This record gives sequence, structure tokens and C-alpha cells, in this order.
Amino acid sequence: MKTLLDHRSIRKYKDRVISDQLLHEIIEAGCRASTTGNMQVYSIINTTDKVIKEKLAPTHFNQPMITTAPNVLTFCADFNRFNKWCTQNNAEPGYTNFLSFMTAAIDALLVAQNVCIAAEDKGLGICYLGTTIYNADKIIDILNLPKGVVPITTVTIGWPNETPALTDRLPLEAILHSQTYSDYNEQAIDKIYAKKEALEENKQFVVENNKESLAQVFTDVRYKKQDNEFFSQKLFEVLKQQGFIS
Amino acid sequence: MKTLLDHRSIRKYKDRVISDQLLHEIIEAGCRASTTGNMQVYSIINTTDKVIKEKLAPTHFNQPMITTAPNVLTFCADFNRFNKWCTQNNAEPGYTNFLSFMTAAIDALLVAQNVCIAAEDKGLGICYLGTTIYNADKIIDILNLPKGVVPITTVTIGWPNETPALTDRLPLEAILHSQTYSDYNEQAIDKIYAKKEALEENKQFVVENNKESLAQVFTDVRYKKQDNEFFSQKLFEVLKQQGFIS
Repeated sequence: MKTLLDHRSIRKYKDRVISDQLLHEIIEAGCRASTTGNMQVYSIINTTDKVIKEKLAPTHFNQPMITTAPNVLTFCADFNRFNKWCTQNNAEPGYTNFLSFMTAAIDALLVAQNVCIAAEDKGLGICYLGTTIYNADKIIDILNLPKGVVPITTVTIGWPNETPALTDRLPLEAILHSQTYSDYNEQAIDKIYAKKEALEENKQFVVENNKESLAQVFTDVRYKKQDNEFFSQKLFEVLKQQGFIS
Repeated sequence: MKTLLDHRSIRKYKDRVISDQLLHEIIEAGCRASTTGNMQVYSIINTTDKVIKEKLAPTHFNQPMITTAPNVLTFCADFNRFNKWCTQNNAEPGYTNFLSFMTAAIDALLVAQNVCIAAEDKGLGICYLGTTIYNADKIIDILNLPKGVVPITTVTIGWPNETPALTDRLPLEAILHSQTYSDYNEQAIDKIYAKKEALEENKQFVVENNKESLAQVFTDVRYKKQDNEFFSQKLFEVLKQQGFIS
């Protein structure tokens, strides 16, 4: 519980390696996560090589953690291994479809979160890179991912060299619904986001970006419609190329 | 670490409620999970009502946990709340696309796994229901999910009334790749799946289903091509209906 409550993303790491023994212990614990039908349709790529990390860096928009963290873990939806097992056991795999992609992506994400908690429990720091699905095509090339494999998320991991403050969260009533979904009226939305909007750092963001509201920082600067549409198209192409949609 | 290593899916629950206080504590801890841009684009529906649980049961192919667990948690990708906040702050949301759906689904899954670990840490038992993405359309109707909201996974939660054995996992070298992806040859696949195939319960599955191999139990009985294709089509329709693909 303490590990969960103490989580903060760590973006600065000490110049110190993670031993293979510790890494394996963490991954073993991570793999105890629930998995659909116990198929374990995921793979984890552990990259420590400087040259490969430097190739990965631009696919994550050069966020510095890729090259400064000792280990970069790329969590992939993976039906390649399972399909091979089926084929060589006279069974015809039926997993070249979107449902199977989502099943494997879910598997990969549950194991990713478990690995992160195991790592944090051992005193390591982690940071998720949501950029993985933006440039999945390039990551596929760099990491030699075969058909049936799609990178879903990336986690950098290392010994923490910073102690950032906890980030804010919406109040519980904003995200938890009783029995069925309770939609939000205008007042409820104002109330839910009031604390976030009042944070000094967020007010600063609004000023720095010359915007009227924090919401505009998200829509006009951080997560823009045109970018989302461009990367959506690319992601669809990846799913086609890797054999999950036709 | 112990909590992670001790995980087993719990399908039988005591006839004992989970207090709101305990549930809130668990969800609060769960919400410390990483979230893209700290947007928290997810919602959690907590269903305890007998009538609603009975409506949900068939959408999960009548797995008994839905009605026997005191709490059913449906984890949803949710851009509805965020979009409303943007719109009423003079910001134009650009999140009606596939990338945004995946971003929200990732958020929902990381929080789901965190909630599960928090629950297990408190002595509760959990079971994931992968069926959520099969019948998302019906779950949307039952839980009144508005546009921008898609159920991704469901977790039943309650006080354990069984102590099942740990399930098997593939050896570490099967799922962990060093530097880049190492594809599998025939011998490697045989070796990876040997332990699973040799398990008494799996041998029994093969006999009971009158199949030649364990792989055939998966392809011909448990996760069939025609079902996967049918539910893929339905899931695409859901993404269209909820405004994530056009």
C-alpha cells in the first residue's frame, strides 16, 4: 500500500546499473499479474545498450530518460509466440484481429504496472512513456518486432536521483461512480477541476503559453487534435502491418 | 512484493460486504497510478446493486463472480469528463480518435491493476473479466456510459472464500528479451511451453475436449477465430458509436 501511495514518476537516475538478478526478480513478480486465459500474450524488451537507446530516443520525442535511465523496458502485445506454438501443434490460430490485439494490449499493461510496483518496492524509480503508441512503427523497426507484436508502453527504470512532490489527483468522486455512470453537469466539472486549476504550477503554464485556461494548454499545446489524428492514422497502419486488422 | 507474488484470481467470495471506507481507500491508492499528462482519462463504476449485477451477468457470459462478488468494478476509458472541462473552458478537445482511445484505455488499465494490488494488500480477492471488451455495447447500455466512455476491463472483488493454487507461468526467458526482440525457433517454442503442456490439468483439458494438443483447446474451444472476428467487429462499432473512430 505504501509503495502505491508513494508513487511519483522518476525522471532523473543515478549512474548505477540494475543487476540482472534484481531485474529478473522484478520481472518474475510482474508476471504474476492476471493474464487472459493464462496465455501471457506479451513480451518485455529490456534495452540497456547505449546505441539502441539512442536510436529509441527520437521515437519518444527525445525525452532524456531514455538515454539516462540504465534500463528501458518496452512492453509489447505479443501473439507471435502464441501463434507459433499453435501452428506447430496443428492448431490454427485465429488471432489476426482487433479483439486479439486489445486482449494482448491489456495483458501487456497489467504486467507493466505490476513490474513498476515491484521495481518501486525495491527502491527503484520508474517513468512511463506514453509516446510508445505514437511512434510504434519506428520502435518496431529498432527493436526488430515481428508480425503479431506491437509495442504498447515503455517504462524507464533506474535508481532515483530526485524526490519530486506527489502530483495532484482529481477528487475521488470525480472518477468513482456508484452503480451506474453519473454524468457531470457544468457545476460538477468546475468543482472537480478547481483544485488542479488553482495550482501555482498550472497557473504558470497558462501564463507561459499565453492561454486563457488550463484546458487550452492541453488542447492547444500538449495534446493537439491534429497530432492525435496524425498518430491515430499511423497506429492503424501499425495494426495492419503487424497483422491485427485487415 | 509478497502481495504481487501471492496473486491468484479469486472466484469464490464470502457473503460479506466491503465497507465504503475500505473501498475508497483502495480506489484512492489505485489512482496514484501513472496517467498520461495527469489527465486521468478513466472512470470506475462500482456496482453492488443485485438487479444491475444480474443485468451485467450475461454480458460476461454468466461467469458467476458477477453476481456472487459484493462489488463489480468496471474500468472505463473516459474522455467525456475531460472533454466537458475543455468545452466549458473555451478549449476545443481533439480526442475523438483512436490514439486518444488507446491513451484512455492505458490509463484505465494501469489504475485497474493498482486497484487490484491495493485490494489484495487489504486481504481482498479479485478476478479480472476479459469479457468486458466482447460485450462493451451491452455494458454501455446497462451502465449508462455516455459518448467518450468505453468499458475496458471488469474486476470482481470480495473477501476470498477459496485458496486456489498459484497458476503456472512461462519461464522468464520466454517473455523477456535482451536489447531487441529475439524471435523463437521451433525448439525454443517447444521448450517454452513444455511445462504448461505437461501439467495434469492441461492434459485433462486435451482429453476432455477430444483434442490432439493443448494449443487446439485454445484455438478450437476457448478462443476461436470466428468468435474473435465477430467480437472485433462489435468492438469497432462501439468505438465508432462512442466517438473514437469515424
